[in-house]
This record gives sequence, C-alpha cells and structure tokens, in this order.
Amino acid sequence: MGNCYKPIIAITIGDPSGIGPEIVIKALKEKHIYEDCRPFVIGSTAVLQRAAKAIGEEIKTASISTPSAADYEFGIINVVETGVYDIEGLEWGKEQKLAGQIAIDAVNKSIAMGMGKEIDAVTTAPINKVAIKMIGVKQAGHTEIYQDGTHADYVLTMFDCLGMRVFHLSRHMSLRNAIDYATKEHVYHDILRIHEQLEKLGLSNPKIAVAGINPHSGEGGLFGDEEIREISPAIELAKKDGLNVVGPVPPDTLFSRGKKGEFDAILAMYHDQGHMPCKTLDLERSVSVTLGLPFIRCSVDHGTAFDIAGKGIATNVSMVAAIETTIKYAKAMHDAK
Amino acid sequence: MGNCYKPIIAITIGDPSGIGPEIVIKALKEKHIYEDCRPFVIGSTAVLQRAAKAIGEEIKTASISTPSAADYEFGIINVVETGVYDIEGLEWGKEQKLAGQIAIDAVNKSIAMGMGKEIDAVTTAPINKVAIKMIGVKQAGHTEIYQDGTHADYVLTMFDCLGMRVFHLSRHMSLRNAIDYATKEHVYHDILRIHEQLEKLGLSNPKIAVAGINPHSGEGGLFGDEEIREISPAIELAKKDGLNVVGPVPPDTLFSRGKKGEFDAILAMYHDQGHMPCKTLDLERSVSVTLGLPFIRCSVDHGTAFDIAGKGIATNVSMVAAIETTIKYAKAMHDAK
Repeated sequence: MGNCYKPIIAITIGDPSGIGPEIVIKALKEKHIYEDCRPFVIGSTAVLQRAAKAIGEEIKTASISTPSAADYEFGIINVVETGVYDIEGLEWGKEQKLAGQIAIDAVNKSIAMGMGKEIDAVTTAPINKVAIKMIGVKQAGHTEIYQDGTHADYVLTMFDCLGMRVFHLSRHMSLRNAIDYATKEHVYHDILRIHEQLEKLGLSNPKIAVAGINPHSGEGGLFGDEEIREISPAIELAKKDGLNVVGPVPPDTLFSRGKKGEFDAILAMYHDQGHMPCKTLDLERSVSVTLGLPFIRCSVDHGTAFDIAGKGIATNVSMVAAIETTIKYAKAMHDAK
Repeated sequence: MGNCYKPIIAITIGDPSGIGPEIVIKALKEKHIYEDCRPFVIGSTAVLQRAAKAIGEEIKTASISTPSAADYEFGIINVVETGVYDIEGLEWGKEQKLAGQIAIDAVNKSIAMGMGKEIDAVTTAPINKVAIKMIGVKQAGHTEIYQDGTHADYVLTMFDCLGMRVFHLSRHMSLRNAIDYATKEHVYHDILRIHEQLEKLGLSNPKIAVAGINPHSGEGGLFGDEEIREISPAIELAKKDGLNVVGPVPPDTLFSRGKKGEFDAILAMYHDQGHMPCKTLDLERSVSVTLGLPFIRCSVDHGTAFDIAGKGIATNVSMVAAIETTIKYAKAMHDAK
C-alpha cells in the first residue's frame, strides 16, 4: 500500500464563534489535500454555511454517515452531522454555551469514530476553554478530552516543525518547577514513551536527542548539575535498554542540528526550550500532534482568535499544515501496522 | 558623511594554532569588504603566510604602521605587526604558550589602537582560553580583557542575528541561578544600559522588548510569579524614566515577532533564551557584539576549532558576517557622534 493509502481524516469544526469553521472551509479549497487523503468535517452544515456566508465564500456540502463509503470529490465538503442546532442567535467572537456544545459534540463524535475505526486520524480546529466549561466539561482542553475519551494510558504532545519532532518533558508549569520536574525517572520514562510511539509510526530504533537544561549542558558541572545528577543517568538507563539516545545535548545548538535532520526526535526539558526554536523558525506551521491515542490527532497551534472571527481575515496556513501533518502521520501509522 | 564613511577595522589574528588566521585570509578575499571599510590584520605576516601555505592559498601582504595613512587595495592584506616570532615549532590544533602570546599581543595592540583612536572598531578571531592562561592571562576571555583594558564601567554582549539585537541578562550560570539573578534591579539596570548603548548607535528612543521567564510569561501568576514580582516592576520603573520598553513578552513567540522587526532590541532573561532562537535561525551568522567599550568589537561566535585548523576546511561565513556586523555598527557609531 505504501504512500498510496489515502487515510480517512476527520476535521472537527471547532468553536463556531471563532475562526475554526472558516479556516476549515479555506483549507478544504486546497486541492492537494484531496489527492492525499479522504477528508470530511465533523460538525454542522448550518454552521459551515454560516461561516461561508460571513467570509463571502460559496461552498457545496454533502451530508455523509459512513466515511469509508463516501465519495471524496474536490469542491464538495463532506459533513458528518453531530446534531441540529438553532444557530440563529449565535454570535461571533464570544464565549457561548451553544458554541461550546457544538465544538464538544464534534470532538466526542471524532472519539467515537476513532474508537470504532471509522477514521484514521483527526485534525482539530480550535475550541474555547471558557465555552466548554460553560457546558460542564471538566477537562482543560483537547488533549485531556481525547486521553479520557480513548482511555489512553498516557499521551505525548509532539511538535512537528519543519520535519523535526519535538517533545516536551513538561509544559504548563513555572520554569523553576520544570527544572525540579526534570528527574531521572521522568526523563527516562519519557524516552521510553517517545521510543514506543515513534516505533508505532514506523521509525525503527529512532534516534532521540535529549536536551540539557543549563547553558552548554552545564559544562561539566561548572554551571548547574542537573545534567550530571538527573539527565545523563536517565540517558544511560535508556541506552542499557538498547535505545538510541544521545545527550544531554547543549540546548543552544540542539535545534540547528535538529533542523538538518540529525535526530528522529528531540526531548526538550521545558516548555519554552521546545516552543521557542519551533515558533521562531515557523510560527504558523508548527503543528501539535497527540501521540498515545489509538489514532493520530493533530491540531493547529493557535486559538479561536475571537477578535478576527467571521471576518475572512484568518489564513488557512496553520490549518493546512495541520491537515498535511495529520495525513503524514496517519499514513505512517497505517504503513507501520 | 552618512553611509559613505569607510571605518578603519582592525582584525585580530586569533590563536595561530586554530582556524583564526585562515578564516581571516578567506574573509579578506571578499571584495565587498574593501568597498565598505578599511580592514587590516593585527598580528604577524609570518603567521598569515604559514596559514596561507597550509590551506594552499597565495596571499600578498603589506606591513603598515599607521592605519589612517595606509592604502587599502583589495588583494593586498595590510598587517600591523605585533612582534617577530619564532614560529617554526608552532603546531596546529594544540594549546601552546607561543600561540597564546601571539593571540594576546594582537588583542592588546587592538586595545591600544582603539584607545588611541587609530581605529573605529575591532573584529576578533578566536583565541584559546587554555593557551592564554599558559602565559598568565587572568581574564576568562575576550570580553573581560577588553573591558579591563579600556577601563569600561560595564560591557554588554549583544547578539546580532538577522538584524535582531539580542541581549542576555545573564549568561554562564546555571538556569536556577539565572532565574534568581532576574531581579527587578538587574532587569532595570540592563534596560538602562541597553537604552544608553543603542542611543550611542544612533537609535533614538529604541524599543526594547523584555522577555518573560515562565511559559506564557506565567499566565498571570498561574505558573510562576517572576514576571509579577520582578520583571514587570522593572519595566514599569524604566517606563517612568520615559524609556520605550515592552513586556514581559511571552518567550515562545518573542523571536517570531522580533525577526519581523517589531523591536529594536530584545532582552533575554537567560543564556539559552537568547542563544537558542538565534542559533536555530542562523548558526553561522549570529555575531557577538561587545558594547560599552570606546569602540565597537565584534567576534565570531565559534572557537578555535583545533580539530580542523590548517586544513582549509573552515568556511569564512562567520568571519565575513562578523566583519560586516563590525562595519555596520562602526558606521552607526560614527554617524551618531
């Protein structure tokens, strides 16, 4: 099958009050997407038409119920309907219960379809954390909802940036706490998980670079000893398991090496260590990939952008990149099976 | 005079056992450098000829003593001799007393010429820290030697990367210590100094972006309060002084904004916060500029590369970038006077 396989990709519509629906519409105007996959939207035709009208686009849609049996013709947007909504009172750029409900219905439907093996992968449009809280959603965001919904033991968030695969040991905690969190145990377990997930994507014995924490990785303990105490021992443990791990790599040149393709993956020790180089290199095309679920899930790395929603200003660049990345890894996972 | 002024640029020869002499030779083969400045080498003709022979280049040199009175003809390398050295026993790629002496003599001569206003600026080739220690030099490196030699109150190291000017609140200390070092007082004083130095370069009321420390600058104290306790109060103080300061800017998107030209300068809170984005964007053309001296000093951001010295492998890219950056700021400083 190789690269010929055209994965079935569900695209959730996102919060209808934000830019989700319009960037989905704009992304599906890119013909090459239909050449590489079978894409459809989970959400509501009415919401799509509302967004199309707002930005002055004309779209054709078709309601489908069985993605594997549908036609995928460029120019017609296939939609799996999650319900019939009274969207007349829906406003742009505002946290609303109904908007949260529509967004969550799409996410839940994608989980059900993923668990039922009706789809290969999901690309998610942005949701609003306040709006989903209004309807009683307990989880903080997409990642947690997908983890809970699929009963995954763990999930890993990977940045795909110019072909680099960047993982983060920790994310939303203070830099001080992130340093404390970088223990031998945490680093070791993340290496194992990254290895496991990359093998599921068909990478055999992937080369994983583990970043240092301190300047020049501490220069032998001269400034900081986290490398000596925690990171190096974790790497040694993983090497004993036969894993292909290098590091601790001095942070300042890690990504200039990474972008030349020296590593299959990079494990950053804290949020900004991974985010800064990726977003500096290519802000709009840094795609977030959730690994550890039974299916691939990718997401644009921006929010609902309430300030510009419904105005036709939002570009499709990030959404197109997210769909392309979804296709890439859905194919890889399919081929590796 | 404007852009027509051709500054006199001294280029120190660097450690003769490393790649310094050969990259100086290769850089001075770029004709445009002679169109924009009056360059000469401080060091030794014998050392230059030795390097030229090793890499299979033929060079013409001329000994000069008064840079302002010399001819600057492309194809002839002007040299201010620092002494007569018995270089027969000099080896490639090794820490040696004589090599350290030759390197330091060039640095000291450049300081003397800078203090005597015989030159506008200096570009330094790499020296070896072990070799200069062998001859009793106490300072850790170039920056400290120039600071002491010129009796400067303070110096600032600035990265020039794709036109961005990046300063670092701290550099060679552990990340934990760097967080502790980011006090209101330190941040405030650095903002004042950056402002002062940039005005000397002709930037009127320069816009200075101060980075946060924590992910998303702590998101209102949710993860980390250094922004609330230290960085924001420092910015407020500077604003009260009438300075054009913004921040704390969330680190992850700071440099994608910076590379579009949004700020005149960026103040990074720790070594890797500034180094990672710059080196990821353009490893070879990130030039280090020392401000606070009576003259501009720029340096390649790599070392002596003992492993490839004398083999003709080293590219001139970083040295050319360093000379171009020296010219740029020497002109700016000249025009601002």
